[in-house]
Amino acid sequence: MSKEEGITVKKEQDFSEWYTQVVQKAELADIRFGIQGFIVHRPWGFFIIKKIYEYFEREIEKDGHVAFLFPSVVKEEYLKKEKEHAGFTPEVFWISEAGDKKLEERFALRPTGEAQIYPIYSLWFRSYKDLPFKGYQSRISSFRNEMTTRPFLRGREFLFFESHDVFNTHEEVLKQVEKDLEICDKVLKEDIKIPFLFFKRPQWDKFKGAVDSFTPETLMPDGKKTQLASTHDLGQRFSKAYDIKVKNKDEKDEYVWQSCFGPGIWRTMASIIGIHGDDNGLVLPFDMAPIQIIIIPILFSNKDNKAVIKKCKDIESKLKNYRVKIDLTENTTGYKYNYWELHGVPLRLEIGPKEVKENKITIALRTGSKFSIKLNDLTKEIEKNAKLLDKKIEEKASTYFKDRIKETNSYNELKKILKDHKGFVKVPFCSMDWDGEKCADKLKEETAANVSGTLYPTEDKIKDKKCIICGKKAKHLVYVAKSY
Amino acid sequence: MSKEEGITVKKEQDFSEWYTQVVQKAELADIRFGIQGFIVHRPWGFFIIKKIYEYFEREIEKDGHVAFLFPSVVKEEYLKKEKEHAGFTPEVFWISEAGDKKLEERFALRPTGEAQIYPIYSLWFRSYKDLPFKGYQSRISSFRNEMTTRPFLRGREFLFFESHDVFNTHEEVLKQVEKDLEICDKVLKEDIKIPFLFFKRPQWDKFKGAVDSFTPETLMPDGKKTQLASTHDLGQRFSKAYDIKVKNKDEKDEYVWQSCFGPGIWRTMASIIGIHGDDNGLVLPFDMAPIQIIIIPILFSNKDNKAVIKKCKDIESKLKNYRVKIDLTENTTGYKYNYWELHGVPLRLEIGPKEVKENKITIALRTGSKFSIKLNDLTKEIEKNAKLLDKKIEEKASTYFKDRIKETNSYNELKKILKDHKGFVKVPFCSMDWDGEKCADKLKEETAANVSGTLYPTEDKIKDKKCIICGKKAKHLVYVAKSY
Repeated sequence: MSKEEGITVKKEQDFSEWYTQVVQKAELADIRFGIQGFIVHRPWGFFIIKKIYEYFEREIEKDGHVAFLFPSVVKEEYLKKEKEHAGFTPEVFWISEAGDKKLEERFALRPTGEAQIYPIYSLWFRSYKDLPFKGYQSRISSFRNEMTTRPFLRGREFLFFESHDVFNTHEEVLKQVEKDLEICDKVLKEDIKIPFLFFKRPQWDKFKGAVDSFTPETLMPDGKKTQLASTHDLGQRFSKAYDIKVKNKDEKDEYVWQSCFGPGIWRTMASIIGIHGDDNGLVLPFDMAPIQIIIIPILFSNKDNKAVIKKCKDIESKLKNYRVKIDLTENTTGYKYNYWELHGVPLRLEIGPKEVKENKITIALRTGSKFSIKLNDLTKEIEKNAKLLDKKIEEKASTYFKDRIKETNSYNELKKILKDHKGFVKVPFCSMDWDGEKCADKLKEETAANVSGTLYPTEDKIKDKKCIICGKKAKHLVYVAKSY
Repeated sequence: MSKEEGITVKKEQDFSEWYTQVVQKAELADIRFGIQGFIVHRPWGFFIIKKIYEYFEREIEKDGHVAFLFPSVVKEEYLKKEKEHAGFTPEVFWISEAGDKKLEERFALRPTGEAQIYPIYSLWFRSYKDLPFKGYQSRISSFRNEMTTRPFLRGREFLFFESHDVFNTHEEVLKQVEKDLEICDKVLKEDIKIPFLFFKRPQWDKFKGAVDSFTPETLMPDGKKTQLASTHDLGQRFSKAYDIKVKNKDEKDEYVWQSCFGPGIWRTMASIIGIHGDDNGLVLPFDMAPIQIIIIPILFSNKDNKAVIKKCKDIESKLKNYRVKIDLTENTTGYKYNYWELHGVPLRLEIGPKEVKENKITIALRTGSKFSIKLNDLTKEIEKNAKLLDKKIEEKASTYFKDRIKETNSYNELKKILKDHKGFVKVPFCSMDWDGEKCADKLKEETAANVSGTLYPTEDKIKDKKCIICGKKAKHLVYVAKSY
């Protein structure tokens, strides 16, 4: 692999350029589609995306959700029914022509599902016995006319997943929020090894139309926080706007209570790239890799390579339970090592004449170590080292994240910290209600940092502290960080 | 179940109304979305759709395809690059505004993938060694501004699946066409039990831009043929239009050879409804059913129901390997039978005091039979009867299809046959080339029947026959039928 074909910058030195190169050189996305903000998901990247989808689908179905599929479009009238939610309208793409004719009624590409799903929900439920209803749609796109776009971080078309749950009581909604948090724990932390904090968001920065929003957020290496999912307590706001009612036990109409949840498929992908990746490229948990084991035959021009290739094929056939491949291209061994490292392949098996002779295999982990194993121990060793690799990825991410949470009570110190610190800072803040917005605006203006919110479900305890901005009695300890 | 809640017409008497009722009452789709031609896939129907997708994904991946994902939109300029393919332009939806602004450059919702994928293919391949490349995208939508729409038959947004293969030679393209036919055999015939004929289409009715098109077609009970998939020999037409070249062994540029394949996800769903269904509603192959086994407790107001319910739960827990449910609603037993039959649940277990006492279970197959089995034989009997049910569905469909292929050499007789006959008629025809179009137009005008094409890969032999329309020497035996 020539220098230009590999990643040419260090991740710590120029994260933005490093990220761009990994996206392109590990063949995750192609940005040459020709319409700004619309990208092509290449096979290598899309395999990983499908894994993210599958994990969330598995957990959401375990939690009793059923899959449905709504159109990609939404009626203009419905988009404007809930007053705050109508705030999406300035961002939507309109379909107003077909062929060479103007449509009688224009319609929008879905910015999110509420306005298409809830009019139909108003037709589906009749009695309190029909609830709870938990439905979701996956492997779909949402569309918003974003001004700046970046693969897996922000796009005009981006990959979407949303569940929409309907209950008889508000209590059930709040339980579902905690259930959604558990799903994030299971998928993001356990499967994908991405650490995060779970926040209740401030009123001025919640989902348009929600009573309360909750989000797991992680940190990219440049210190910017990124939202991995969001779950919303919608109260009865949408049920009142879209007229979703059921008869209660006394045969009286009652508006239903709703929650909705959306894992950020793209942001999760961005976090895998950014947090797990290293100077050589992509790093992937074992289960997520399109190829889990790459076999590299070590060939010599003056030796009998047939035995080596035969051994490689024998080993490949023994590893049928994994996604395994032998690299038989004409590239040099060094090129092959770098190529598959860049693509994040977890385990590399090296087999040369020495290995054939001694009935051994050299195994190299994408996370660093390399050693010789006995051929007889192959499957046992693969299993062991796959787990070891996952553990290393998890530990590295966890250490990375812990180091990035600081705390201060002083605005001056916060400003100083934010200059170098790439992460969250915990500070006392006056209010999470609308009256805190002014302080948040000042903070944003002067430091470029946003208020993520308070920890949820267990908020940090606070006593006798003053808001770092206005100096009034602080009601909360909130987390602030820069964002994209 | 009241009379109105069940299907109120006989399938044979009013297929169109029967179809509409099954779609609605078996909760497959909701047509009340508010924008014509855009439907909601309800959970029960969408489960079946996902099965269709999974079968095709399994087979296409076995055949070496990798998954990618392109945007939902396409650049106007690209849509018009291949002269014949540009014929899609009058049908496309245009996005020309965002928020309250006109876009600088409008773009279209994808009518099909060629015009979005091939400009990118021109960037991906450099050498003949990069080929063959086989890629596909699944679980996506296509959009065309159709005038008349019907759930799963024709929509303005309809579910899509497409593979796009790139080869060094034309020979490989033709092999891929046969491979695509094998995939159709495996999925449509074996998994889904839908019989079909595989045609090479006439020149005047092929895919816009293709050299040749090939389609498996089946018949709906109203006698209309429906296209279950299509695969196309694109020759070098698109590679020349989109400049997809590779260096050959002599380091010279050569345009690649291409094929593309698209199973009709919706049409397959429509065929399942239409062909397998009966007067009571939906009928589903065992593996496709959202619930495979419904357990109905036979309860009596004057008896000890606890033992019955306990037994139902015991049995449910023994059947964990299946999708199983106990119907514990307050509905009557008769209502429950009809409800689950309408939804196509393959096996019904009835358990009442008698069954508890005698350690027996009554088992009813959706395809008709009902009998008592020993509790001890439960899992064995489930397995056996699931297979039996599938076999019955397959046999019924196969008999149905065979009865619907007739043959004649006379135009007058054809006209007579087409009046009552609900199916294909095999007739001698002058030409499958463009010069046969005039005869096809006349046939269509006078009988509403279309020419599907000649059987492929083995065409019927013909000798000394005359075209039923123009009377000139017939070159082919073609199949004609009415279509939607």
